[in-house]
Amino acid sequence: MSADEFDIIAKLFAPLATSAAARGLIDDVAVITAGGQMLATTDAIVEGVHFLESDPIETVAKKALRVNLSDLAAKGARCSGVLLTLIWPDHRRSSEIADFVRGLAEDLEFYKAPLLGGDTVASPGPLTVSITAFGDMSGARTPSRADAKLGEDVWVTGAIGEAWVGLEALLEMGMVAGAAGLGTEFAACIDRYRTPEPPVAFADAIAAFASASMDVSDGLLQDAAKLAAASNLRLVIAAERVPLSGETRAWLARGKLDAAAALAGGDDYQILFTAAPQQRAAIEAAGQARKLAVTRIGAVEAGAGVSLVDGEGRPLATKAHGYAHKLGK
Amino acid sequence: MSADEFDIIAKLFAPLATSAAARGLIDDVAVITAGGQMLATTDAIVEGVHFLESDPIETVAKKALRVNLSDLAAKGARCSGVLLTLIWPDHRRSSEIADFVRGLAEDLEFYKAPLLGGDTVASPGPLTVSITAFGDMSGARTPSRADAKLGEDVWVTGAIGEAWVGLEALLEMGMVAGAAGLGTEFAACIDRYRTPEPPVAFADAIAAFASASMDVSDGLLQDAAKLAAASNLRLVIAAERVPLSGETRAWLARGKLDAAAALAGGDDYQILFTAAPQQRAAIEAAGQARKLAVTRIGAVEAGAGVSLVDGEGRPLATKAHGYAHKLGK
Repeated sequence: MSADEFDIIAKLFAPLATSAAARGLIDDVAVITAGGQMLATTDAIVEGVHFLESDPIETVAKKALRVNLSDLAAKGARCSGVLLTLIWPDHRRSSEIADFVRGLAEDLEFYKAPLLGGDTVASPGPLTVSITAFGDMSGARTPSRADAKLGEDVWVTGAIGEAWVGLEALLEMGMVAGAAGLGTEFAACIDRYRTPEPPVAFADAIAAFASASMDVSDGLLQDAAKLAAASNLRLVIAAERVPLSGETRAWLARGKLDAAAALAGGDDYQILFTAAPQQRAAIEAAGQARKLAVTRIGAVEAGAGVSLVDGEGRPLATKAHGYAHKLGK
Repeated sequence: MSADEFDIIAKLFAPLATSAAARGLIDDVAVITAGGQMLATTDAIVEGVHFLESDPIETVAKKALRVNLSDLAAKGARCSGVLLTLIWPDHRRSSEIADFVRGLAEDLEFYKAPLLGGDTVASPGPLTVSITAFGDMSGARTPSRADAKLGEDVWVTGAIGEAWVGLEALLEMGMVAGAAGLGTEFAACIDRYRTPEPPVAFADAIAAFASASMDVSDGLLQDAAKLAAASNLRLVIAAERVPLSGETRAWLARGKLDAAAALAGGDDYQILFTAAPQQRAAIEAAGQARKLAVTRIGAVEAGAGVSLVDGEGRPLATKAHGYAHKLGK
């Protein structure tokens, strides 16, 4: 049975909106108290583009939130609140909204991100979730993509390629008879595709140590190229230093693919940053203290673009590119 | 030919984002300097739900912005910036995005609303535009829906029902042979449906004089009921005092409908507010000074709900209700 938007807001969303700024979600606006600078970012996810129709609805809520937290973490900020716009398809059962909200509630609690407001609308199209997230800066500056300096190290948090493997495995399971075993073999990768784990606990270290910084969402190689372009410099990345999980290596071996394929896949939601070589020990200590992987994968050099090199510094040939949405026809 | 999302952002959106807070749209986040309290609101519009596929794409951009400016004006605030999420259908020509951006640019200029950031994604579904708007408060307080007091007057800005007539005329033109003449006969109403005109210049008067205030988006009667419920009081509205345009009256006469039909129609984007009787002269002067219509349409009384009454204060029977999206199946 379809449900009234106002009932949904009052019964499901309002109990989550306990912050005074949310005004109980009855007032069309959030009233945010902000002193000094505040970050704001917005990212939407669309069924069939950023997640699969078969993904559990709880993970859709979590992914929508986490892709936004990823942007804030990469800028050295912690989330201070979110606005959520839920665009609900006419063909989906409204009873699933409660499951969506349960997933959202778990994540709002986990990430200590207050729900401040939003909008809930019906659509004849795919499930779409648009979130605006606000961030409090951990430090005095917000590292941009353009702040890399010649001679700096290039770092990345976490592991690269897992979400790409997860998506590939899910697609193969849907299309190839007998591929269902991939669900257990590549379970961690499937989890990472559905629920990315942006390293939010590393945000203060980014604020303290990073020069340039951005989140990796469209593939490491493509995002590195954007950072290089914004900084007017070249990023040289040692392919074998890029951290890949055991499952990712198994996927590459299975498909006879080289590592560059994983470096071109999207949806990592890790942080790519540059830092002065003097910061190496401090960055490694910050990773250890937070139990987060952080790996030095290359260097900032003169020139333009991204060079992927082997262990001896020789360029690797790769046709791999990252992910860019094509818009319209 | 489809276009790359990064090209679209760089070529079409970045030239609009001249505020330093936008960081040229290359940095995933906006850096907003806010002292004290800031309002934030978000509203999405979906093709086939909030606008018609046949609406000019320029007006879609404007409507998406204006429905958000309406929320801010009703809270006594002026827009200090917006984030825009454009969810572009695969079946629409990407060349139309330039037209969308032109409409948006005209309105950003007209309303002096800086573009601070956003997201651009592809979708297999309908064109959807989600905007988050930030507001600077004009006064010391933000009037809520719950602030009405016994004995206050009920006021509304502008005229009610025009957008409803415009939508009805457009639907009839699409479905009834020979109804095309409606396009000229009800042109102003069609304009109001496509491009609402929220009374943003009245925001400071709302901050100065209003007790409770909200924008009228789901029909005057339904929104009045929400204000009454939030304030734990009853709103008594004199049907014949509610301002209707000549076109709206002509539409009602043509369909042998009573005024309540116009009061139940949505998409007005005017402001419904209550104020103490001592403020009457000041409110009327504020309307005249801004060349904006503002009309006293009723009173706040004890009880609950909304009573629509005739010239002698007798209850009018009406089955009219407002608009609520039904979510899902």
